Amino acid sequence: MTSSPRIKVELYYDVVSPYTWFSFEVLCRYRSHWNMNLVLQPFFLGGVMKASGNKPPMTVAPKGMYMQKDLQRNAEYFKIDIKLIEDPYNVLVQKGSLRAMRFLTAINLHCPEYLESVSRELWRRIWSKGEDIVADDSLIMAAKEAKMEENDIEKCLSKMDDSETKDALRMATEQAVDYGAFGAPTMVVHTKEGPEMFFGSDRFPLVAQMMNEVWKGPIPDQKSKL
Amino acid sequence: MTSSPRIKVELYYDVVSPYTWFSFEVLCRYRSHWNMNLVLQPFFLGGVMKASGNKPPMTVAPKGMYMQKDLQRNAEYFKIDIKLIEDPYNVLVQKGSLRAMRFLTAINLHCPEYLESVSRELWRRIWSKGEDIVADDSLIMAAKEAKMEENDIEKCLSKMDDSETKDALRMATEQAVDYGAFGAPTMVVHTKEGPEMFFGSDRFPLVAQMMNEVWKGPIPDQKSKL
Repeated sequence: MTSSPRIKVELYYDVVSPYTWFSFEVLCRYRSHWNMNLVLQPFFLGGVMKASGNKPPMTVAPKGMYMQKDLQRNAEYFKIDIKLIEDPYNVLVQKGSLRAMRFLTAINLHCPEYLESVSRELWRRIWSKGEDIVADDSLIMAAKEAKMEENDIEKCLSKMDDSETKDALRMATEQAVDYGAFGAPTMVVHTKEGPEMFFGSDRFPLVAQMMNEVWKGPIPDQKSKL
Repeated sequence: MTSSPRIKVELYYDVVSPYTWFSFEVLCRYRSHWNMNLVLQPFFLGGVMKASGNKPPMTVAPKGMYMQKDLQRNAEYFKIDIKLIEDPYNVLVQKGSLRAMRFLTAINLHCPEYLESVSRELWRRIWSKGEDIVADDSLIMAAKEAKMEENDIEKCLSKMDDSETKDALRMATEQAVDYGAFGAPTMVVHTKEGPEMFFGSDRFPLVAQMMNEVWKGPIPDQKSKL
């Protein structure tokens, strides 16, 4: 028996998006279940929305109302602790996520082994604990929670406004737009026939279908634990 | 053992929407699997979009591009034969579905036993065969495919522009908007605690979670057939 090569799956993500947190955790959980080479790729959702002419769902009032319930239902389904944000316009639009995503891009360039854990801590801050993700102190605290060394934290913090970092984030965002992205999560499955883009944390059954894998729900190893 | 009362689940639907066809078939398939009293409720998607300030996904260019792939992937997943429409603006926007939905509303009022089968035939016309769904001849052909008697067809056709029919369709649409609808499919699960609205053919795992039922994928009786 020969094993077929792993399929590269890119997750383009921005920690401002709670639905993307679901996809992030699901893909991390499926690493040992699917024949997949998962590539975590920070991008800037604000740039994607601008380039595609798309608008956040909350700009349509009934969609915004529905999203609050939908998020809570999905949080229960995916077993991820989500707390609704009280002042979403201020937190998600005015403050936004640019500094968080630049910090993650710097980590991806200089200490990539911490990318997953710091991303998770930033999501936990904004979407579980209702905490800031743009001030230096916030970034430092997230990195400490992720067990990064102080040297590495300082290094990445000092490099987050370098043109190398800014360019890397811009290029990742443009790459996603080239794949057809108009929001987040954007997943790209690199099949033999070429890249296939999927949008949304509700498309895992279709991703599985494309990859000839089995979608076992949001917690793939639940059964073996029973 | 006492059996708990069936949970009323309303599907608000318009045959102009292919995603709603997926939901329609799934709910019909799950009738014998879930403790559910399924109520099929024709409504007018154009009215919902207007009332909610929402716009069709294809008005954002990259979303429209993505939707073509997403529809085909979902068609494969749900095992429903979808053919993309070549001139969507003409068919979906200009021609629209008002006459089809009035015909279905008249059927719901006067011959409700044919509502499911004629709805299915109208979806098959527009989304499988690329055929018209607004001309009288088209409505007649769909009704004949659904084995309606000629008398009944004539009756429903003659009543589709009555104020009773128009009012019933308008009221169903307004009811859905009151439940928070901004698109289709809109499903309303009537729990003990009150109505819970779900949007989208990708929300069945969450509907199952709400109903304490098991989501067995798009074909619930597949395993028993193997």
